[in-house]
Amino acid sequence: MARLEIFVENVRGRPDIYQMTPDKIEAALRSQPGLAERIAISSGWSDADDPARRRAEVLIGSRFELKTMRERMPRLRWVQTTSAGVEHLAPLDWVGDLTLTNASGAHGPKAGEFGLMALMMLNDHMPAHFSNQRRHVWGRLFSTPIAGKTATIIGTGGMGGAVAEKARLVGVRVLGVSRSGDPHAAFDRVVPVAALSSVLPESDFLVVACPLTQETRGLIGAAALDGLKPGAGIVNIGRAAIVDYDALRQRLESGRLSGAILDVFDPEPLPADAPWWDVENLVVIPHVSSDHADAYLLRVLDGFFANVARYLSGEALKNRVDPSLGY
Amino acid sequence: MARLEIFVENVRGRPDIYQMTPDKIEAALRSQPGLAERIAISSGWSDADDPARRRAEVLIGSRFELKTMRERMPRLRWVQTTSAGVEHLAPLDWVGDLTLTNASGAHGPKAGEFGLMALMMLNDHMPAHFSNQRRHVWGRLFSTPIAGKTATIIGTGGMGGAVAEKARLVGVRVLGVSRSGDPHAAFDRVVPVAALSSVLPESDFLVVACPLTQETRGLIGAAALDGLKPGAGIVNIGRAAIVDYDALRQRLESGRLSGAILDVFDPEPLPADAPWWDVENLVVIPHVSSDHADAYLLRVLDGFFANVARYLSGEALKNRVDPSLGY
Repeated sequence: MARLEIFVENVRGRPDIYQMTPDKIEAALRSQPGLAERIAISSGWSDADDPARRRAEVLIGSRFELKTMRERMPRLRWVQTTSAGVEHLAPLDWVGDLTLTNASGAHGPKAGEFGLMALMMLNDHMPAHFSNQRRHVWGRLFSTPIAGKTATIIGTGGMGGAVAEKARLVGVRVLGVSRSGDPHAAFDRVVPVAALSSVLPESDFLVVACPLTQETRGLIGAAALDGLKPGAGIVNIGRAAIVDYDALRQRLESGRLSGAILDVFDPEPLPADAPWWDVENLVVIPHVSSDHADAYLLRVLDGFFANVARYLSGEALKNRVDPSLGY
Repeated sequence: MARLEIFVENVRGRPDIYQMTPDKIEAALRSQPGLAERIAISSGWSDADDPARRRAEVLIGSRFELKTMRERMPRLRWVQTTSAGVEHLAPLDWVGDLTLTNASGAHGPKAGEFGLMALMMLNDHMPAHFSNQRRHVWGRLFSTPIAGKTATIIGTGGMGGAVAEKARLVGVRVLGVSRSGDPHAAFDRVVPVAALSSVLPESDFLVVACPLTQETRGLIGAAALDGLKPGAGIVNIGRAAIVDYDALRQRLESGRLSGAILDVFDPEPLPADAPWWDVENLVVIPHVSSDHADAYLLRVLDGFFANVARYLSGEALKNRVDPSLGY
């Protein structure tokens, strides 16, 4: 039987953590005994062509050259991203009859810990302490315990669910906002996006952990921010365009909101002359919240190879992206 | 029967959180039904004299004028501090035949949360991110989950025990160092101070949460810092003089240690021209880690009035300071 041809595409110049090296591929394959004999894996840079690419039925990578993808890969049937978000590939009309899967779930362990840490930092006024430290100001801001306070998390998927689980460990009450509003075991309550404004007034903290789609772009604008409790804090580990950063900045400067911890910006890397570096009570994190230093790609590849096994046996794939929803 | 005369001494100019106001006293008294009828409470500033002070058998306050205390309070038998630390009253030879009790335990809820947050901040390279933000540098430092890493906590009392409990919630392995080395349910293992150097090489994080005494002054000097794992991080919620900050600074600047979160300095408030504000990977917290914004003094007074009830019934007092140990 012919082996399933898989092409692994790396992008030059990205940090090591994002490179799919032979050792990572081999390590991930070990979790699927017998699979190695049924597939043929080749790899190359995104900007280089080679015969293996032309033969491949499956492509795994991150920043595809969409315009030439089908021409360069005439046998392509399935595209896997190494990121959870696919908004950089939008609009998704190029998907057509292909199958597109993402890396949803790979961020859980780190995202959960980062989310808990960020909530505790907001509760303990860390953004204000950093602003004070920059100015050499000894400003004694006291706080009350986080136990019993309420965090609302936009997105109840892999990342949002992981944050909810960790936040509950210290007694935080966790509300969720999702497209469906379906209940989720890690949340005290989940409401659909249309009911967002109903949970904001109870929220000491707001965590953005959803994909960027047509529905979520600009979702957290001035109106949503003004719906939060006075002095609330905000965390963004989703995408920058979900939140109106100009509106956020005004509310940080006026004191209406007490702090923000932002892991995502547009563009990235954040230019040295961007305004956000110096905004009072705003903490800049360089998009590292949710990626495990040693094991991020290993987790992505683990999930991918489990899907390859399903593909070979004709089962439905997990993490399939719905092009009409954008995630 | 004569009422027990208690004098409540406040210090002018301290933050509201530290002022023992009538409403806080009344609220705390509610937890001891019947006690109000057996005591007579008066209050005044530390620098003012009045007849009630002269009559009092019990004094509660923070920064006593030790030289004139006995002369101004001839009937004094028992002194209660509103702080856990009593090193500012050292040497304790003034105690003599008095009973001295402290507020150990009042810091638990906040100290535990602060300790967990600080450990997670060190694990996620927050001190480096702040240093980078100050310079407008987008520096992608990735991290591995904190679960499974090891924190060593100096001090297994109210604060250290609370930090251990919270740290375990996210899977941190917690070692303790105490005078006795006695086992403690919140710690995986406790060793006596003499065995400190044996646990340092296993430690990803070091948390200082012990009182300042003759035994702990300078305990964490260059040798102890060099015993930690390369890249380890340090938290100090005890007292500044326990740690050699100059040695710490050198190791932060060389990269031998990855970060420090310091809540205590000498002197406080930290002067605007102190060097610590600008040390790379050092986070300055203005001595607020462990004091509950709303309920700190309420917790102190709760503990005090429970002790007053014991005093009136001839029971042994809790939180009694041993002048020979200094805590």
